[in-house]
Amino acid sequence: MMHRYRSHTCGELRAADVDTEVRLSGWLHNRRNLGGILFIDLRDHYGVVQLVVRPDTAANEALSSLTKETVVRVDGRVIARGADNVNPDLPTGDIEVEVSAVEVLGAADPLPFTVFPEDNVNEERRLEYRFLDLRRERMHRNIILRSKVIAALRSKMTALGFNELATPILSATSPEGARDFLVPSRLHAGKFYALPQAPQQFKQLLMIAGFDRYFQIAPCFRDEDARADRSPGEFYQLDVEMSFVEQEDVFQVIEKVMTDLFNELGDGREVTSPFPRIPFREAMLKYGSDKPDLRARLELVDVSHVFAGSGFKAFADKHVRALAVPDTGEQPRKFFDQLGEYAVEQGAKGLAWVRVGEDGKLTGPIAKFLNQDDVAKLVAEVGGKAGTSIFFGAGDFDEVSKIMGAVRVEAAKRAGHFEENVYRFCWVVDFPMFEKNEDTGAIEFSHNPFSMPQGGLEALRTKDPLDILAWQYDIVCNGTELSSGAIRNHEPEVMYEAFGIAGYSQEEVEREFGGMLRAFKFGAPPHGGIAPGVDRIVMLLADEPNIRETIAFPLNGNAQDLLMGAPSEVDEARLRELHLSLRKPAPAKQAAAKEPRGAEPQAHPAKPVK
Amino acid sequence: MMHRYRSHTCGELRAADVDTEVRLSGWLHNRRNLGGILFIDLRDHYGVVQLVVRPDTAANEALSSLTKETVVRVDGRVIARGADNVNPDLPTGDIEVEVSAVEVLGAADPLPFTVFPEDNVNEERRLEYRFLDLRRERMHRNIILRSKVIAALRSKMTALGFNELATPILSATSPEGARDFLVPSRLHAGKFYALPQAPQQFKQLLMIAGFDRYFQIAPCFRDEDARADRSPGEFYQLDVEMSFVEQEDVFQVIEKVMTDLFNELGDGREVTSPFPRIPFREAMLKYGSDKPDLRARLELVDVSHVFAGSGFKAFADKHVRALAVPDTGEQPRKFFDQLGEYAVEQGAKGLAWVRVGEDGKLTGPIAKFLNQDDVAKLVAEVGGKAGTSIFFGAGDFDEVSKIMGAVRVEAAKRAGHFEENVYRFCWVVDFPMFEKNEDTGAIEFSHNPFSMPQGGLEALRTKDPLDILAWQYDIVCNGTELSSGAIRNHEPEVMYEAFGIAGYSQEEVEREFGGMLRAFKFGAPPHGGIAPGVDRIVMLLADEPNIRETIAFPLNGNAQDLLMGAPSEVDEARLRELHLSLRKPAPAKQAAAKEPRGAEPQAHPAKPVK
Repeated sequence: MMHRYRSHTCGELRAADVDTEVRLSGWLHNRRNLGGILFIDLRDHYGVVQLVVRPDTAANEALSSLTKETVVRVDGRVIARGADNVNPDLPTGDIEVEVSAVEVLGAADPLPFTVFPEDNVNEERRLEYRFLDLRRERMHRNIILRSKVIAALRSKMTALGFNELATPILSATSPEGARDFLVPSRLHAGKFYALPQAPQQFKQLLMIAGFDRYFQIAPCFRDEDARADRSPGEFYQLDVEMSFVEQEDVFQVIEKVMTDLFNELGDGREVTSPFPRIPFREAMLKYGSDKPDLRARLELVDVSHVFAGSGFKAFADKHVRALAVPDTGEQPRKFFDQLGEYAVEQGAKGLAWVRVGEDGKLTGPIAKFLNQDDVAKLVAEVGGKAGTSIFFGAGDFDEVSKIMGAVRVEAAKRAGHFEENVYRFCWVVDFPMFEKNEDTGAIEFSHNPFSMPQGGLEALRTKDPLDILAWQYDIVCNGTELSSGAIRNHEPEVMYEAFGIAGYSQEEVEREFGGMLRAFKFGAPPHGGIAPGVDRIVMLLADEPNIRETIAFPLNGNAQDLLMGAPSEVDEARLRELHLSLRKPAPAKQAAAKEPRGAEPQAHPAKPVK
Repeated sequence: MMHRYRSHTCGELRAADVDTEVRLSGWLHNRRNLGGILFIDLRDHYGVVQLVVRPDTAANEALSSLTKETVVRVDGRVIARGADNVNPDLPTGDIEVEVSAVEVLGAADPLPFTVFPEDNVNEERRLEYRFLDLRRERMHRNIILRSKVIAALRSKMTALGFNELATPILSATSPEGARDFLVPSRLHAGKFYALPQAPQQFKQLLMIAGFDRYFQIAPCFRDEDARADRSPGEFYQLDVEMSFVEQEDVFQVIEKVMTDLFNELGDGREVTSPFPRIPFREAMLKYGSDKPDLRARLELVDVSHVFAGSGFKAFADKHVRALAVPDTGEQPRKFFDQLGEYAVEQGAKGLAWVRVGEDGKLTGPIAKFLNQDDVAKLVAEVGGKAGTSIFFGAGDFDEVSKIMGAVRVEAAKRAGHFEENVYRFCWVVDFPMFEKNEDTGAIEFSHNPFSMPQGGLEALRTKDPLDILAWQYDIVCNGTELSSGAIRNHEPEVMYEAFGIAGYSQEEVEREFGGMLRAFKFGAPPHGGIAPGVDRIVMLLADEPNIRETIAFPLNGNAQDLLMGAPSEVDEARLRELHLSLRKPAPAKQAAAKEPRGAEPQAHPAKPVK
């Protein structure tokens, strides 16, 4: 007996099915009327198939008046398309289905926007009718890609001997980091759970509990404002932790997983593996960034010594970084002017440059300020050949890094030194453990206070703190940081010492981090991990710059769910049950803090009361 | 070069590795001193291996004084155990490792309780030191089983063409059902997100968006009090939804997944498949329950008509259910007395019974009240043979079902009619759509108002509401309900009609359920689904009666995380930022509502202020 709704999906009929009686269900994707004959594209999750409906049939009458996006069931016979009508772009393009019967399964009112063609609609409207928006091919494909990415990550991690273990979502507030989302407790008056910013402590506890290799596609929550690459509210990371490992062990695992994943789902874009390991200081020097975009095949060079004591006051005795851009002999003046404007947008006062001529002589605005000796040293330093232009940034190290790092990528794009259609990963390693606060002179942790210092207790006790590096690392792809990670400091003694250097007493350490410290005192293994952001991975693979295009039901930029109407008001009884009352905004601040009651969610956030 | 921490895990060395130099890391599981020679069991995630440490070596000195559970690295040589010392129970039992060097990687303070042997500890203490508790073999095995169950569910669902799609965790409050957990919004003063009780609406929206076959290992949140089989706070379900399906399509998928899962991970216990489909009314009649435990191979029989107009007043003109228990001819009086006591515990006044003798005559307390005719009818009805005992419950249908349903299982266990070591699944189907409220006489929804009524619009318009069945079903295993499910009502017209019967106006329906109704109006496919509870599946497979034994970091029965200290107080600045203030309990209720500030989490919940 034929199935109530379908014998085949809309994507599976082929020439071999000609003459078969079939039943199909799907959405009325598109309809053309050619002299009374209806040609209908019927769509489901699996594809699109063409229906033919002869004139003067009941089916024709039924189908001619239905709104697009109506869900129908049709019965019919598969027929071959004439040679002229074969559609090679469609997997079902060899056949069509001649319809004999129709049933409406789900009627459609006039649509707020079209599903096909995919006309422009503003994002708020799309989110409000997300169930329609998700039917559009691009969104449908993105969401399925996301599902495939996550399934592939799981299967690769499992194949490498990792167990996926869930950590709590109703958890404790964390004493530092970003802002938590809080959940008031009903049973414990005046107390709150927090949603985890990351399962950091739990994954370390799992190592201490002996689970050896953990991963989780972990939901994380931060009450931060939205950015293009950050959803307000929740996001997911491939949370990983391993015991009895050094930094390189973590790299081996993640490098294999990422290389395989991007090869499988990267739409043919090349992945270069192994990933280079770039020390933090070298990354800042060569790329002006600890998130180097290695698609840009240019490097910065420190040429400060060339200009030490130089007569050219703009460079003399300053930190000077040069960017040599080969093969720019034919570039017009506009090329240099536009790069200069770009540098100014990044905060530079201007962008000095010279060009190496066929005769080895320099031309360009600042050529006249350089003496013969400088020129020779400079050209040797940057490997400048005829046709190479050299751009300069001078000033403070960090400021020059920021500006020239951006100019490096922009110049590469404009001068043809930028690889398209590749994924260029790298590891940035050897982050400094401590840094000096320029205002107070105090020694502070540079990044993660819980990382193991390179050299351990001995380094802490004997070295200049500013020379101590940490077993801490970032994974970067195409200039996007996917994650930080670290070998953790699992030894209480080392932890007390490291925090001591940063000015914490033993008592302060115990008060702030007592939970983890206690666990470390009952037999903790050396361990380390990482947590690449799933959303960013999907954005890279889908080639989407806005994170919301990769999530089925995202909050909007203003942290609202426009479809379901969240957040929303709750009644007084619920507040009482939670031992809470709403705080009345102070009158002076009322305008900023208050939203109209009962109104629809608004497009712009009310400012929080500080 | 040898790895910094290990060349092998503690579970992998075999006879073939004899004479290999190895490096191992793990926990000091156990230690015996035999005439100065130390025999140490070194444990990691993968297993246990025996170390031998000769007297008068540095290694012996180091290892003899370490606390159990210290993490050490040892170097040594694999040697064969003497034939007398081979341990066939241990995968590494053919070998031991003679230690030449030792390094302490993680010291251990004296333990609050032992990891090995697994002495009894109270649960609060175990949760407070969960990182130690999870090292114990039973807990470690349960957590890994849980991970395997979830991985297997994912792989089976994916193989059946389902896509895993994540739905939001920060979402909207739901107008009905259990109590939500709320999350105050910082950006939108006075408004709250809710954590999802289940992704019910989102999964239906995914069907309307055309994703066809969805699943998710979905975190769900209900602010309800704990039970043995329900964690307070969060739980997980295998959330499933399918388009263009009827009830039987859902059954085919879930039956295959559950059969395969329980065969793979059920420790050899038999799974009987296909699962019987039992109509709700039949389940209540035969098993006295809509969660029948089919391991009990006994059935109840309605014998009311036997006693219609009978002279036996206790049964006459009442609803009377009989339970025939074969092969009880030799049971002593105690058997009957104890079952009687059990029935009284269930709320019965007593438990009437008779026994069929070799001569076909009845004996037992109420035999004398039955006339010849009654006896003949009764014995024929229940199929009573010599040696069969017949127990009776009389009264109101529901009350008799409850008591006799419990007696059925208990009698089966006591009389050898209960199958051990099997998983007996069934589907309970054909739930009534509506029921009459006995107090008000009003027609109300029996279970799920969003299920499709059998017969659709026509049935609603033409049949007695109390005769209408729903396309709604439960999956039950060994008397545990794993999930309800339904074919959904996706047609607005049918929904208005069904709610109309239950007394809702069209306006009320639109006000309460407007979000979903709107989505149904733009081309919704027929769809249905189910959501088996992952926690209950793991409990069945692990054979653990307490859900907390199957979760790595559960809240305790009082909804507290004793390890991380949640819930906890937050400072005034955070409350201001969230536009909240704590409600001071009214003085009269203060004692009940207030917890000592700054105190440790307490073992008993403070009563919420109503």
